[in-house]
Amino acid sequence: MSSSSTGSRGETVPTVPSAAGVAENVESLDGADDVDVSGMLDRGRTMATPVLRAAVDRLASPMDTVAAYHFGWIDAEGRPSDADGGKAVRPALALLSAEAAGAAPEVGIPGAVAVELVHNFSLLHDDLMDGDEQRRHRDTVWKVHGPAQAILVGDALFALANEILLELDTVEAGRATRRLTVASRKLIDGQAQDISYEHRERVTVEECLEMEGNKTGALLACAVSIGAVLGGADERTADALERYGYHLGLAFQAVDDLLGIWGDPEATGKQTWSDLRQRKKSLPVVAALSAEGEAAERLGELLAADAKETDFENFSEEEFAARAALIEEAGGREWTAQEARRQHTIAVEALDSVEMPDRVRRQLVALADFVVVRKR
Amino acid sequence: MSSSSTGSRGETVPTVPSAAGVAENVESLDGADDVDVSGMLDRGRTMATPVLRAAVDRLASPMDTVAAYHFGWIDAEGRPSDADGGKAVRPALALLSAEAAGAAPEVGIPGAVAVELVHNFSLLHDDLMDGDEQRRHRDTVWKVHGPAQAILVGDALFALANEILLELDTVEAGRATRRLTVASRKLIDGQAQDISYEHRERVTVEECLEMEGNKTGALLACAVSIGAVLGGADERTADALERYGYHLGLAFQAVDDLLGIWGDPEATGKQTWSDLRQRKKSLPVVAALSAEGEAAERLGELLAADAKETDFENFSEEEFAARAALIEEAGGREWTAQEARRQHTIAVEALDSVEMPDRVRRQLVALADFVVVRKR
Repeated sequence: MSSSSTGSRGETVPTVPSAAGVAENVESLDGADDVDVSGMLDRGRTMATPVLRAAVDRLASPMDTVAAYHFGWIDAEGRPSDADGGKAVRPALALLSAEAAGAAPEVGIPGAVAVELVHNFSLLHDDLMDGDEQRRHRDTVWKVHGPAQAILVGDALFALANEILLELDTVEAGRATRRLTVASRKLIDGQAQDISYEHRERVTVEECLEMEGNKTGALLACAVSIGAVLGGADERTADALERYGYHLGLAFQAVDDLLGIWGDPEATGKQTWSDLRQRKKSLPVVAALSAEGEAAERLGELLAADAKETDFENFSEEEFAARAALIEEAGGREWTAQEARRQHTIAVEALDSVEMPDRVRRQLVALADFVVVRKR
Repeated sequence: MSSSSTGSRGETVPTVPSAAGVAENVESLDGADDVDVSGMLDRGRTMATPVLRAAVDRLASPMDTVAAYHFGWIDAEGRPSDADGGKAVRPALALLSAEAAGAAPEVGIPGAVAVELVHNFSLLHDDLMDGDEQRRHRDTVWKVHGPAQAILVGDALFALANEILLELDTVEAGRATRRLTVASRKLIDGQAQDISYEHRERVTVEECLEMEGNKTGALLACAVSIGAVLGGADERTADALERYGYHLGLAFQAVDDLLGIWGDPEATGKQTWSDLRQRKKSLPVVAALSAEGEAAERLGELLAADAKETDFENFSEEEFAARAALIEEAGGREWTAQEARRQHTIAVEALDSVEMPDRVRRQLVALADFVVVRKR
């Protein structure tokens, strides 16, 4: 557990964050610091990956190969590879979710796999729509295998997600699939909003939060309720777990937005000022633009000029650094760090209404802490 | 009912078909000729469309508008329109399917809507992957609204299909969704095969039939079983209905392949020699290439040269007509017409193992006849 936080719960300490994260003053339950978060993430990965690979193996050729490349199991030439498969927060949550309902962690595995499939379906399609050429330090699928395969394999993973759940053939699986479907639609709504915001000069903080709730919150919410649903939890419990996951997702995204500007490229695997290069209207930018004062005004003028700039990609490091400094001066960085803490607090409080084993509760809290203090 | 067939059941009469269709000698149950097929199709459309429109209205802006354009409810400028929405065979089948299980036709409506949503999800994505610029006499979605919207709205319709079914919150709906998911995966497999065959010089008749079974058979099979499943039919009944639908789909596709070469552009809404212009390895082509003799040989040489031709799009009517004549001379046209009849026979015979009201049986047979004799 990498949190250095010792702040007592419920108390908000709005200090300027150090480095990119909000490592100081994260809300945390007493005692959550002794939880082994990386062990928790490893467990999720270890238990879910073989089932995920077996599911992907069902795909007809060449979709199985394309999917295996996307997941980092093989390289572009088809040789076995062990590339970075992401943080695996979702599988870890799905297993904890089953345990929160008093079931064995194994009960959450089909849920973990289904959520991972939906998550990766959306990555495949979003990378193509956004024209992103790199993900997790590697060329994206559409770049290596072409746009048609990116569309096709995304579709196949989406279908496979429902298939995996529904072949359990239980009432609980039907409920789990319904929640996954609702989350998938929100994911798609979020991407639609993201695309439409790109063409707009101004986006409000509320619009940005709604978009991020759809793009990130909804599927984390599903991950942390789906195991419980498969384990027979009632709707009220599942809803409360979803609330935790949704706000955890918003905290996660706020930190992602900080890392997207001030993150260490070595750790994130992205370019310096990555989100600025992409002219992304992320939380720090939107918050800074909606502030009062000279810095906000200068930033607004600068970004409006940038939007018309054709040689934007060749801007120097200094030019991006100047924009980042203005965002920080206008308060966008601090506001976003505070927002991450605020969402973290709401997430952790949502757990209060759910009865669950103490160990599971402490693990969920520790995971929330981890999400907010991570460096990548 | 447009069949002029009076051939008695079980007897195959392999004559060369007149016009594009296989109007003569279609297998048909005695008495199916008095069924009002266009009334049946109208009923499906009339009962399913309002629910389909309400489902599409759930989509966030601008996806609702893009979807409405795709369905032909508005034009590219957003004005109300009443464009050709297709033959609506699937909704008609879903309602009959419920009746086959002894339920009211209304029971099949969510199934009809879900199948239509999946069908249109696949059209949106396939048109983009294939670069098709026209569908039903109008510009395709990616052409009007861009590739990102085609991907996004396709995804949304796919999710919506499952949502519509699962919110019924019944055991039957879970089963129906599972069948729809399996069919969707086959649809995607079929598109993957279609794309990979394009790059191959030779495709066997078996491979072509497998691809068409996936692309067309699977979803028709689902349409004709989904209403019964929602109506509480057992698995055996649903499987038999699927068998009818699958072979109906293969008959449908064989006729489509005939129309794709020899169809009347006025009726089909496609260009003359449409499939030849697209170098499609459809059944008549594949069957002709796999035949013995001079015509097959000359056709093979010609198509191999065409594959390398860069000015192919500007070929004259006469050049395409020459290819069509060779396909016919090599027996590809007759083989495909016979295959349509053969699949029609298998489809109709699959109904024998299902107990159902006599009226419903006659309607299903009449629909099979219609599929084989249609001109568009």
